[in-house]
Amino acid sequence: MDRLHEIRLTPIGVVASALTDPAAAPKQGREGAPEARLVIDPSVLEALDGVEPGSRIVVLTWLDRARRDVLRVHPRDDPSNPMRGVFATRSQDRPNPIGLHEVEVLGVERAELRVRPLEAVDGTPILDLKPVI
Amino acid sequence: MDRLHEIRLTPIGVVASALTDPAAAPKQGREGAPEARLVIDPSVLEALDGVEPGSRIVVLTWLDRARRDVLRVHPRDDPSNPMRGVFATRSQDRPNPIGLHEVEVLGVERAELRVRPLEAVDGTPILDLKPVI
Repeated sequence: MDRLHEIRLTPIGVVASALTDPAAAPKQGREGAPEARLVIDPSVLEALDGVEPGSRIVVLTWLDRARRDVLRVHPRDDPSNPMRGVFATRSQDRPNPIGLHEVEVLGVERAELRVRPLEAVDGTPILDLKPVI
Repeated sequence: MDRLHEIRLTPIGVVASALTDPAAAPKQGREGAPEARLVIDPSVLEALDGVEPGSRIVVLTWLDRARRDVLRVHPRDDPSNPMRGVFATRSQDRPNPIGLHEVEVLGVERAELRVRPLEAVDGTPILDLKPVI
């Protein structure tokens, strides 16, 4: 297949969170996830211009603890759920484990955003931020 | 900054669309974008198990025609809009130009999905598919 050549990304920042244990983290933000900080690299500070407290944004993360060789899973890690393809689930395990997290911006201080709720664990690389439309 | 090391992705497929001119493509799917096909690589066919006609999914694409060195833009390419940081806009130009497209699955035939509406142009690499939650 054409165009399946490798793509290279450099994260734009990292998540700072009290969540450190992936097994204990909520599966979705709305399932009790805490406030967290997005520590953005100073090299892209200008790109934050216009991201304000009260904004709703989508945080795209790189789920670096996920397995990339898994194509079918029991949804929600529950063996009583029949196996499904990962593209029909929100499993972290998938060929390109990019996380999507819709959050509210609580505060902005230079290159750091306080957001809520975020289920990604401490140290998770951030790929992009977009406004919710 | 820690963990800003390079990440490598391999697309899982490509968009097949009648849209070939990026300048003429709608900026968002709901702005008159057409039906398109997602041609998924046979190596990840199993991961499609459970993606059915009628499903609403988010297609993550790699916007390979975007500029990655742009940090501020006039939103919607309109010079009368004041410049803003790209993280406060849906501009294609951004450090990691990942596109998010919410579409309906119209049909599934082995490793090909028919979806609508999709504003990505023909040949755009696909990174991931997720159900809308």
